[in-house]
Parts: sequence; structure tokens; C-alpha cells
Amino acid sequence: MLPLLSINGFRLQTDFEALAQIGQTAGGGVSRPALSVQDLEARAWFADKVEEAGLLVRDDDAGNLSGMLYCEDPNARVLILGSHLDSVPNGGRYDGSIGVLAALEVVRTIKESGLRLPVHLEVMNFTDEEGAWLPRMGSLGLTGQLTPEYLAAHGQRDAGAFRAAMVRAGIHPGDIYRARRDADAVAGYIELHIEQGCRLEETGLNIGVVTSIVGITSYWLTFHGEGGHAGTVQMRERRDALLGAALFVTEAHRLISERFPDGLVNCGMLEVKSGGFNIIPRESRVAIEFRHAGVEQLTEMEKLLLDLAYACAQTYNLSVDAKRAATVTPALMSDTITNAIEQACEQIGASTLKLSSFAGHDAQIMSTFTPTGMIFIPSVRGISHDSAEYSHWEDIERGANVLLHAVLALTEGIQQNA
Amino acid sequence: MLPLLSINGFRLQTDFEALAQIGQTAGGGVSRPALSVQDLEARAWFADKVEEAGLLVRDDDAGNLSGMLYCEDPNARVLILGSHLDSVPNGGRYDGSIGVLAALEVVRTIKESGLRLPVHLEVMNFTDEEGAWLPRMGSLGLTGQLTPEYLAAHGQRDAGAFRAAMVRAGIHPGDIYRARRDADAVAGYIELHIEQGCRLEETGLNIGVVTSIVGITSYWLTFHGEGGHAGTVQMRERRDALLGAALFVTEAHRLISERFPDGLVNCGMLEVKSGGFNIIPRESRVAIEFRHAGVEQLTEMEKLLLDLAYACAQTYNLSVDAKRAATVTPALMSDTITNAIEQACEQIGASTLKLSSFAGHDAQIMSTFTPTGMIFIPSVRGISHDSAEYSHWEDIERGANVLLHAVLALTEGIQQNA
Repeated sequence: MLPLLSINGFRLQTDFEALAQIGQTAGGGVSRPALSVQDLEARAWFADKVEEAGLLVRDDDAGNLSGMLYCEDPNARVLILGSHLDSVPNGGRYDGSIGVLAALEVVRTIKESGLRLPVHLEVMNFTDEEGAWLPRMGSLGLTGQLTPEYLAAHGQRDAGAFRAAMVRAGIHPGDIYRARRDADAVAGYIELHIEQGCRLEETGLNIGVVTSIVGITSYWLTFHGEGGHAGTVQMRERRDALLGAALFVTEAHRLISERFPDGLVNCGMLEVKSGGFNIIPRESRVAIEFRHAGVEQLTEMEKLLLDLAYACAQTYNLSVDAKRAATVTPALMSDTITNAIEQACEQIGASTLKLSSFAGHDAQIMSTFTPTGMIFIPSVRGISHDSAEYSHWEDIERGANVLLHAVLALTEGIQQNA
Repeated sequence: MLPLLSINGFRLQTDFEALAQIGQTAGGGVSRPALSVQDLEARAWFADKVEEAGLLVRDDDAGNLSGMLYCEDPNARVLILGSHLDSVPNGGRYDGSIGVLAALEVVRTIKESGLRLPVHLEVMNFTDEEGAWLPRMGSLGLTGQLTPEYLAAHGQRDAGAFRAAMVRAGIHPGDIYRARRDADAVAGYIELHIEQGCRLEETGLNIGVVTSIVGITSYWLTFHGEGGHAGTVQMRERRDALLGAALFVTEAHRLISERFPDGLVNCGMLEVKSGGFNIIPRESRVAIEFRHAGVEQLTEMEKLLLDLAYACAQTYNLSVDAKRAATVTPALMSDTITNAIEQACEQIGASTLKLSSFAGHDAQIMSTFTPTGMIFIPSVRGISHDSAEYSHWEDIERGANVLLHAVLALTEGIQQNA
């Protein structure tokens, strides 16, 4: 039996340390919002690394920056591996970065091995995954979803600043729709990412094989009651709008925790009118969002939560109106790619946990366009979007090797099919 | 048996209709914030009425405006009857006004009757009961509580505008402390007022004999948890500050309703940090105030509500800090005056209900200074501070007769004691 092909951990770690210097914060994290000077510096560094590895630098009209390893067949499809180099303000060093760096290391390893694959390989850095300007702008552009209608509906508070930031990064605002690719030319997309949760840490397993990315539905629920003087209106005569909203908040958490162990709910905002120590609240507005990886469950959660809102209103003699703020459909990962990831884990002896991603990723957008899969590695204490974000180095290296062997398993399948 | 002395209902109603024209609103209410042009017009009208009745117009350095009926003994004490002519913005026609007008009518009736009382009578219009600038400014001034320290602690957002408003009304800002009177020169204070609640209406009784005015304590309660990404932190791992605040709101209402039937609680404001659909609340602040007429009960409510806040915090693994915003001690009415009011009701055949006032009044301030009593008449549906505020005319007239006979009963007592 031949020794297994393996990535160069030292080279990957050297890259990781160098990238973490760009936009580093006092707390030990990084701050590289998309199209900021720090993001542009990270892009320039990445382009240098791509060239250094003997890959071809490619960019598109949505600012996506990638490195190409072309195979011998000019008509072959391209298998995209990657993630994003941008971060939230004062974010961590791992989110996004390790996905791009592992992809680069995997392609370098394959190039050096002399293996001839039946697909082109592309190491991708997507533009603005975190949404400094427009969340998942790069993957939306590549998949043809960055239409004028979409831009109008998701318009920026400061469109002029967004345009200036794009121009500074060499993106022509009128041309971003041209980033659209032909789906037939793409073989698939694989993204390595930190879990941003505790499920791997708690189970002690090595690799999360993502089966789906959660859908998210959000609402504004407005409870309407009657104002009044808190000194003179008796308790039993009140129609206090805050009581309905408050009851809904605690009951929504109880309901979803009990009935949907794989679901999440959050009431992130609550407002009261007219505010005053001695004024009975006449109106109270709650922002709620809920997540589930299953389409049916997400729909059921919506129904139950709306029923709950009406019941809470009734309890305190109020009315309520519900306005849907947004919805993102759950995204299913490709069985073919999921199988390839599991096969890779078996080959290198990594234990696995099938799980859903509760956070959004470029993979969510890509899954509507091409067979897509995600590999999660453990996040210490699940902390993310914070300078305390941390993953053990052996987990990162193991994840990169899973990505490598998933590519090999997948392309072996492509060869066999061809 | 002689027929009972009675006020002139037609004259009282004529005054009421005339006063309701001053600052009248499109909705049928009045808008006469203290020291406004409308308030000054009402004061001028009142001074004319006082002179017309053959009383002496008196004013003091806090802007209190009154009409004096002096008795024969220059060393006699003064019994003060009254309320206030100012209103909240867009308030009703009854709050305050009927107390001043009934007092004027009672003193006119006594003057015309030729009765010789052992006290001077004073029909009082207190300055700014509603707090356009400084709540209960007039009664605070008369009782010597308008010290520079008090003014500094209850400072106005716009002290310059307050000074200008005082000067326009003929009040010298530097002299308001001079309104202080000698308590030995005052025999007592009686105020007729609308109930601003439904207890008389619900019981079908005529007159509320106020035994006490509620104390009010208010707090800001801040629940502290941990922020985080609502998509990646599992439900059971969260420390969601809003859950603690929301549970507190519903439980505080339940607790006070169950344990303190004569108490009131209101959570009038609730704020969440950092607000976002997908951000777990890390901090949530609730404004709470609670009222009770009993000193001990108010203290017990405070203890139970703070215990509840800690328990709610514990339920969701949070911490909480409590900051007292304000407190007003419950005010007890004088037994002597309460007895005189009850005796008057018996004389004229009015049914009575002993009750507490849940709203503040000048009587609350006066009770710290001189024996004080209050007479409540029914408010239709308890509506107040609104143009829909309404009391039936027969109730107003009955209340004025109770005030008349309470004065006679009280002064008879003073004669007997002398």
C-alpha cells in the first residue's frame, strides 16, 4: 500500500501566520472588512501566493479572485475550492481564511504530486462573504444572482460609498453581473470552514460533514394594546402591549427548544411605545428569526410561532400583526460531494459527524448552481466573529487533508464516469 | 329641621363652561400647560371670578393664585380648599379645574350664607401640578420644599425656558423659596378631584373618601448576558439577556396582581443591546415602577420584585443590576378631615367608598405640612389626561356639596375645640 498523499502542514501554517498579520487587531484577531485597505492587502498577498505556486491568477467582474490549475483537457469542467479572505470588523483569524489557504495548499500538493485530474482546479476567494457591503456578493455574482433587481432590493444605505469601495478594488459597478458563469462549466464547489459551534468539540469527533445549510425566516411582530396612565388604570383593565411581546419571547424559546432540537430561534430586538415609567405600553415590536435545515420544519416553525404570537396577544387582550422581514431557503449539500468527503475521512482515519450549518456561507449560494459540499473543523468553545476564535492546528491540518482526498475521491468518480 | 345649606349648581356649571373655553382643543378637551399663554388666561379669568365673589386676590412667590375669605379673628388659621387650573397637553376639562371651581363655589356659598367661621378660607390654584416644568411646584413652594437643592436635583432640561416662562407669569425665579408658609397658620387642606379610575363607577358609589395617596418607587433593571451569533450558538448554551427581562415583565405583573390587589406595577420601557435579527441580546434594560398606598406594602413589593429580578436572571444564567430611579413615600390623609368628609356625605345622603389615590396630587405634598383630605367624584370609564375625560354633572355638584359640608363639619370641630 502506497503512503497516502498529504498536504504540507508547515507551508500551510506559514501562510496562515502571514495572512493573520494583515489587518491584525490588538486582541489577536483580524479586521478585514470586504474592499477595505486590509482586504485589498490580503488579496494582493493571495495573488502573490497563487503566482508563487505556479497557478494562474484569475479575477472576475464581481471581484472574486482565484488561482487556476488547468488540466490537459481544455474542455474540462472546473472544480472550485475555497472560501473568503474578508472578515467581520474585529473578527477572528480562522473564519474564511483557513478555507482559502487549505484550498491553495491542496492544489499546490496536487500540482507537485504530478497527478493528472480530469478537471481544472480553482482556489477561490469570494468577495464580501461577511456582508460589509452585500453579503455573499462574490458567490451571488458567480452564480448569476447579482441582478439589478437583487441589488435594488438589497440596496446599501450608502450606495455612493459602496461604489467608491468597488472602484478602489478594481471592480466596475456596472459590470458585476458579468461575473456570471455557465453552470455546465463547473464540476462542483467544496468549502472547508470552522464549525462556529460546539457540536464537534462536544462529541470529540474530527470532521463535520455538512449535509445542509439552514434556512432562515425572520419577522417583525407588532403587539397592539392600549396606552394609559400606569397610576390610574387598574391592572385587570389594562391592555399592556409589552406583556404580549414579553410572553412571546420566553414562550418562543421554550417552544422551539422543546419541539425542534435542530432548530434555532432568536428575538434580537424589542421596542416599546410610548416609553415612560408611568405609561402603559400601547405597542411593542419584536424582531424574531428562526433557522432550520429542513424546508418542512422551517415552515412548521413559522406556523407554530405565528400561532403562538396570536395566543400571546389573546392572553392579554391585544392584537398582533406579523410582517415577514426575510427568508432564505435551506440549502442541501450534494450527496456526491458529501460521499467523497466521508470517503476521504475514512481514508485518513478521521471520525465524522453529519451536521447542518446554522450560519450562512458562500456554499449556500453555490449549492443552487453546482454540486456543493462543506467540511467543518472544530471551533474551540464555538466562538466566532471574535478575536477569541480559535481552532487547534492539528484540526486545521486534518481538515486540509480531508479536502485533498475529497478532491481525489470526487475526481476519481468523474474519471470513472467519463 | 332646617334645610341643608347647598351650593349654587347653576353658577358652578356656568363657571365650568367658561373655564373649559380657555385652551380648548378640537377634541373637546383643554390644553393649558402651566405658565403657557392658556394657563395665564385661566389665571386672569380666575382672579376676576375671585374679585367678583367679593374675595381678596392673593398670590405668592411660587405663582400660587388664591382668593381669601377672611374671618373676624385676624389670628385665625387658614383652611385651604383647591386644586389646579393647569392641564397636561391635550388633557381633559375636569382634572384640577373642578377642584378649584368647587372650592370657589363653596366659599361663595359660605360668604353668602352669613355663617361666621373660626378660620379664614382660601380658594387655591396651585402652580404646575401636572409638571409642565416642575410637578407640584406650587404646593412644594408653599410647604417650603422648593429649596435650591430640590431645584438642582429636579433640574429642567431647558432651565432658560423655565425661567422665561416664570418671568412671563410674574414669578421671580430667585424668589420662589419665599412662597413658604408657616404651618401653624394653616388649619388644613381639602381637595376635590375626579377619581381618574373606575372604582366608584364599578361599585356605583357616589364619593371616594381618600385615605392615602400611593407611594411610587421606580427602578432600572439591567439584565446582563452574553452576545453571540444567533445562527451558531446553540439554544442551551445561550445567555440571552432579553429572556431574563421578558420573564421578569410577565412575572412581575402576575406577582403584584396576585399578592397586592391594592398595588400597581408597570414596565413602561424595555431596551435591548446589541439589536439585530441575528444577534443574541447581551444586555436588556427594563424600566419598572410600582405603587402602593401603604408604606410597608411598598417596601415589601420592592423586596419581592428585586428578588424576582434575581430569580429571572438566574433562570437564564444571567446577572442583573438594579438602580433605583425615584421614590415617593405614600401620603396618609388626616383622620380629622377624612371624618369630616364622611360626616358631610352622611348629611347629604351620599354613599362613600374609602380608597387610595393611585395618582399624585398637590394633596400629597400638602399632607406633609398640614392635615389634608381629598374627595373623589366618579370618572366615566376612568379616562383621564385625555379629551374623553368626563364626569356626570350631578356627581360634580354632589362633590361640591360634600366639600361645603366637610368645611362646615371641620370648622364646627375647630369651634368646639377652641
